Amino acid sequence: MTDREQMTLTSAGYYVSQEAPIVTDNPVATPASAPPDILRCAYMELVVTDLAASREFYVDILGLYVTEEDDQAIYLRSTEEFIHHNLVLRKGPVAAVAAFSYRVRAADDLDKAVAFFTELGCEVRRSEDGFVKGIGDAVRVIDPLGFPYEFFHQTDHVERMSWRYDLHVPGELVRLDHFNQMTPDVPRAVKYMQDLGFRVTEDIQDESGTVYAAWMRRKPTVHDTAMTGGDGPRMHHVCFATHEKHNILAICDKLGALRRSDAIERGPGRHGVSNAFYLYLRDPDGHRVEVYTQDYYTGDPDNPVITWDVHDNQRRDWWGNPVVPSWYTDGSLVLDLDGNPQPVIARTDSSEMAVTVGADGFSYTRRDEREGKLGNQL
Amino acid sequence: MTDREQMTLTSAGYYVSQEAPIVTDNPVATPASAPPDILRCAYMELVVTDLAASREFYVDILGLYVTEEDDQAIYLRSTEEFIHHNLVLRKGPVAAVAAFSYRVRAADDLDKAVAFFTELGCEVRRSEDGFVKGIGDAVRVIDPLGFPYEFFHQTDHVERMSWRYDLHVPGELVRLDHFNQMTPDVPRAVKYMQDLGFRVTEDIQDESGTVYAAWMRRKPTVHDTAMTGGDGPRMHHVCFATHEKHNILAICDKLGALRRSDAIERGPGRHGVSNAFYLYLRDPDGHRVEVYTQDYYTGDPDNPVITWDVHDNQRRDWWGNPVVPSWYTDGSLVLDLDGNPQPVIARTDSSEMAVTVGADGFSYTRRDEREGKLGNQL
Amino acid sequence: MTDREQMTLTSAGYYVSQEAPIVTDNPVATPASAPPDILRCAYMELVVTDLAASREFYVDILGLYVTEEDDQAIYLRSTEEFIHHNLVLRKGPVAAVAAFSYRVRAADDLDKAVAFFTELGCEVRRSEDGFVKGIGDAVRVIDPLGFPYEFFHQTDHVERMSWRYDLHVPGELVRLDHFNQMTPDVPRAVKYMQDLGFRVTEDIQDESGTVYAAWMRRKPTVHDTAMTGGDGPRMHHVCFATHEKHNILAICDKLGALRRSDAIERGPGRHGVSNAFYLYLRDPDGHRVEVYTQDYYTGDPDNPVITWDVHDNQRRDWWGNPVVPSWYTDGSLVLDLDGNPQPVIARTDSSEMAVTVGADGFSYTRRDEREGKLGNQL
Amino acid sequence: MTDREQMTLTSAGYYVSQEAPIVTDNPVATPASAPPDILRCAYMELVVTDLAASREFYVDILGLYVTEEDDQAIYLRSTEEFIHHNLVLRKGPVAAVAAFSYRVRAADDLDKAVAFFTELGCEVRRSEDGFVKGIGDAVRVIDPLGFPYEFFHQTDHVERMSWRYDLHVPGELVRLDHFNQMTPDVPRAVKYMQDLGFRVTEDIQDESGTVYAAWMRRKPTVHDTAMTGGDGPRMHHVCFATHEKHNILAICDKLGALRRSDAIERGPGRHGVSNAFYLYLRDPDGHRVEVYTQDYYTGDPDNPVITWDVHDNQRRDWWGNPVVPSWYTDGSLVLDLDGNPQPVIARTDSSEMAVTVGADGFSYTRRDEREGKLGNQL
Repeated sequence: MTDREQMTLTSAGYYVSQEAPIVTDNPVATPASAPPDILRCAYMELVVTDLAASREFYVDILGLYVTEEDDQAIYLRSTEEFIHHNLVLRKGPVAAVAAFSYRVRAADDLDKAVAFFTELGCEVRRSEDGFVKGIGDAVRVIDPLGFPYEFFHQTDHVERMSWRYDLHVPGELVRLDHFNQMTPDVPRAVKYMQDLGFRVTEDIQDESGTVYAAWMRRKPTVHDTAMTGGDGPRMHHVCFATHEKHNILAICDKLGALRRSDAIERGPGRHGVSNAFYLYLRDPDGHRVEVYTQDYYTGDPDNPVITWDVHDNQRRDWWGNPVVPSWYTDGSLVLDLDGNPQPVIARTDSSEMAVTVGADGFSYTRRDEREGKLGNQL
Repeated sequence: MTDREQMTLTSAGYYVSQEAPIVTDNPVATPASAPPDILRCAYMELVVTDLAASREFYVDILGLYVTEEDDQAIYLRSTEEFIHHNLVLRKGPVAAVAAFSYRVRAADDLDKAVAFFTELGCEVRRSEDGFVKGIGDAVRVIDPLGFPYEFFHQTDHVERMSWRYDLHVPGELVRLDHFNQMTPDVPRAVKYMQDLGFRVTEDIQDESGTVYAAWMRRKPTVHDTAMTGGDGPRMHHVCFATHEKHNILAICDKLGALRRSDAIERGPGRHGVSNAFYLYLRDPDGHRVEVYTQDYYTGDPDNPVITWDVHDNQRRDWWGNPVVPSWYTDGSLVLDLDGNPQPVIARTDSSEMAVTVGADGFSYTRRDEREGKLGNQL
Repeated sequence: MTDREQMTLTSAGYYVSQEAPIVTDNPVATPASAPPDILRCAYMELVVTDLAASREFYVDILGLYVTEEDDQAIYLRSTEEFIHHNLVLRKGPVAAVAAFSYRVRAADDLDKAVAFFTELGCEVRRSEDGFVKGIGDAVRVIDPLGFPYEFFHQTDHVERMSWRYDLHVPGELVRLDHFNQMTPDVPRAVKYMQDLGFRVTEDIQDESGTVYAAWMRRKPTVHDTAMTGGDGPRMHHVCFATHEKHNILAICDKLGALRRSDAIERGPGRHGVSNAFYLYLRDPDGHRVEVYTQDYYTGDPDNPVITWDVHDNQRRDWWGNPVVPSWYTDGSLVLDLDGNPQPVIARTDSSEMAVTVGADGFSYTRRDEREGKLGNQL
Repeated sequence: MTDREQMTLTSAGYYVSQEAPIVTDNPVATPASAPPDILRCAYMELVVTDLAASREFYVDILGLYVTEEDDQAIYLRSTEEFIHHNLVLRKGPVAAVAAFSYRVRAADDLDKAVAFFTELGCEVRRSEDGFVKGIGDAVRVIDPLGFPYEFFHQTDHVERMSWRYDLHVPGELVRLDHFNQMTPDVPRAVKYMQDLGFRVTEDIQDESGTVYAAWMRRKPTVHDTAMTGGDGPRMHHVCFATHEKHNILAICDKLGALRRSDAIERGPGRHGVSNAFYLYLRDPDGHRVEVYTQDYYTGDPDNPVITWDVHDNQRRDWWGNPVVPSWYTDGSLVLDLDGNPQPVIARTDSSEMAVTVGADGFSYTRRDEREGKLGNQL
């Protein structure tokens, strides 16, 4: 954390500062090896228990494009994607995440990835033919936080569907935007991710410096991934972007028409963090999917870092609508490189839900008033 | 109520029937006098306790146009209105509704209104110069349900602001859409309103025929007013329409920016009833204001009447998001013709909130499954 | 025409007046018989030369819903329609309009229609089983202007698709909005339509009182039909409404993707007249289809009538974009009751195209400046 | 140009290839010095002849935020910008562009800029205090194409207005998107820009390899600048992005309301190139401003390069609407480092307008048909 004295309070109620405002007293060591040059989050490999049910959700309802499929796996992409896929649905016995996969700038970044994670003492595997279809030489690791991370450069190119308006649906998902991970110790996670080349764009803290979540990017959006404080390693969500807000509303309307409105977990709403318009869904296995639009450009090296007060009731929802408890507590298991679920470690820092709602928490709409909408409603 | 055997279940989960599916065993007598020919809901006269605070809410935030104002009252209209006003804010000691005002087709409809309500034994007053500025000859009554209703034809014309895009705001309110009233006995209220010339478009019932709410129209939209079951007579809300859904989201965003997100009570969301996109706000006195867009044409005499099952969790919010308790319980007092608050009579039929949430209630997403999203979330 | 001295110039540049500002020196006689009580424009019967090509256009591209079809005809409806159809595509040798069909309030309005048009000396036919599927007792006439008009009340009810968001497309057409007819003598046409119960909402005139077009309504929108000055009787267009502007843009995008952008004749743009957002397409036979959204409520009997100056370059397109010549000159033939094309009579009044563009015309952006964008561009 | 045999024709009608498909036989020499690491286009300095008129256009109409102003210059920024400005309006005798300014990654990139352009034989000036307010150490050059280019890193930070929805207008401009330059020899220009570190994303060619325009980027959008074939050096336009398409329509509506629709030169429409939704305006001095939304991510090093056939009538407008001649022919002068207009050199290659319209040109909607909409309309 950074002392708030060193931050600037904005007219909108959050703070800005120049340096990433998070420090840890329990750091992962910084490797001497340079990290790979990561371009962006590229795809998630998701293990699902009922491939047909998942296909219905991601293809028939959400309208992702099928690049390739067989009876074991479905390779899906968003409208403007030109690489082979943004999501792999693989049939398996336990719903979990098999890989958070990032694309690197060049083939030799894979060597850097191997060196970086080997030096960190992580389990590292490399497959010259890739671990999934459409992807060539790839490195998979269990990172210091326990997550299965993949790095690759080579991939088959496919046609961008951006001009194929004849195939678009009202809720068109145009690109993979980001991942979100649950981990017990956010400052420790942030420090490691910074070593890996990520930059913090926003975070949530309290006055005493407890960090509840942090957003980090490689591509110049608010994030390629975020670290959400909670029991972990678990996957909080994977997020696709739409062009406009009505596209997100159309997804809700369609779920209602299909009598699947219970797939809507939270939203739609406007985030405080990121300023994006959002919706959270749960797929047939309970994996959380966000749909999101209109955050902001973050590509300058001195991009101001935003810190939100955890008690600001507009940080998670700019309209002050309450966050459902499941959104704080639920997450997907992640797998080790042999396909077994990683053990989950409990968070010991205070939880965002506990400090903002209920007897021990509070949230304000206006900084000088303790009582917010949330307290009145529940 | 009508037996569900006489209704047709649609593919979207609601029922349709040809005749207004509500009967009462406690009717208001039908007058022999013909009712006035009502065109539409035209304006509400609202008593507010702090005129400056209300002006800030309705003018600075919501962007209604000021036709005329002095230190006692402000006359406001929506973008496309050509009559003098759609809302009067009048300063007074107790927040309440002084009049639900309807425009009638011709001057002699006022004579009909006098005859109709006199025959009903109601208190009736007529003012040739109108009760407020901009309105000529008018009749005010306390109707059989205890509400202060006004009827008028003559009004000053003002310029429609539809082409004045230079003055429009992101959350532009384009027309007054409807009123919504709370009354203990909905079937009794509906019967009287039908005598007054209104037609039912939708309602909410349970299987045993208890009616929880009904929507009624003169102009060919889903409603000019609705009767919501609850302690009454009280005003549930007044509603303005926007052109597009993003206009409604813009109002939420603006309230967040002003750190007034606690003015957002419920939504935004998609209604099941009416199929409109909606938002509920509370003004500085707690008066509830809805913003709404995109219901459907109802002007044919055989327009199918829609009945929703009270346990259908998508009836109030098509996305299954929960209704906050205050939305069911809170309402504004209404005044008698001398300006004193009308006494509130308790509803004795079961309440919609009680039968849909909590230990004694249930809501379903799919007709054959008892467990819905609401039950899981709260 | 009405003297401009009797009109009020608005801040947006058009005039308003209380009385319909059009008079004719060549009137159709007013029948002693009362006209039928028309509810709204209900459907158009269109003769097409290639049923498969038309089905592709109206169903696959525009997304209208098929109520019923066989190898001779296709019955289509828009999303929120509950009557059997809004458009009949019937296979025939010559592309033309077989009927402009209006729904009347009650069965006995058909007797009134017979009396009204018989007194006018028109050819009148009645079919108790209707002239097309899904419609019962109906009256067809060749009206005094030469157009095949139909009136009916009985129709089969079908399910409204408004809640079936799972079937909606990005360019969803939600309702039939209006017809538009080409006729040489607009004032004569208006007088007859007023006798039939229509009310004028807007018109285009020049200072000397030549009327170039007029809009008339039964339902409370800007029009159920309009009379456009030109060689006639011909059909100018049939119009469907969408909910939002992006729906109209989506139709353009889809036509581009299908390499059918040449089906876009004019727009998208914002009308001055009606204030609606619009697009004009041409179907495979050249029939013109408008898509339109967000005009305004006109249901009050004293709704101000709007008159636009023919030289105001923002009257047809509020953004001043030029009208393509084909939009002024092209129209569809209409059929007599035996299915033969009606002869076309040339307009003798000056044409709107001639007085606004070219050597003999002018258009202004600002009232006091003769030179507008149009003149500069062409 | 690249042989079309080496390109892949997509289902949408354009070609893709892996390498930038443009070669020149008249190259600017490649410097041995490394180019500066450019982050993005950052601001344009525009000389205007009437500061008050320009302020009305950019502030009152377009809603840009004033960071700072005096009687000589106004410093403006878009909603989400955190650097001092995106546009400087400076009062001067001749309307022109004084600088196309790019932000570089670090302070020492300015040394690289000096070395790079000095080696190219260009005029180079450096000002440690910057050339305008809010910008520190900066380098200005007249580049090999004759354009005044600026590079800077240091800038004052200002508050992002993204969360200040209370200040947003319906046509909110959220970021500076790109510049567009007119130059006679596009392949020569592209080669030099590639040396400067830009990557080609799209271009327009004919079958014989004549290049009519090319788009190039540093940040991962379709472009930071484009080279449009024409007499030059001149500025074709500067472009701001909005969040949604309706924001662009709102600007048109507002211009109509202000009776300034003649400021709309072309559009709104959908580009083929970039897939963005667009509008072109002309400011009071005739400087062209584009408003634009929703292109696509281009940040991967193997991002497929798109080549459009110059005869494809959907390349400039996906809906096939004609491009007005002024859009091809008009441009703004650019200044040398002393503030004098640069001489304009005529293009000798064939012009895009000439090869696509008129007696010697053609445009097709479908590849195998010569006749397109454009030919039919004009």
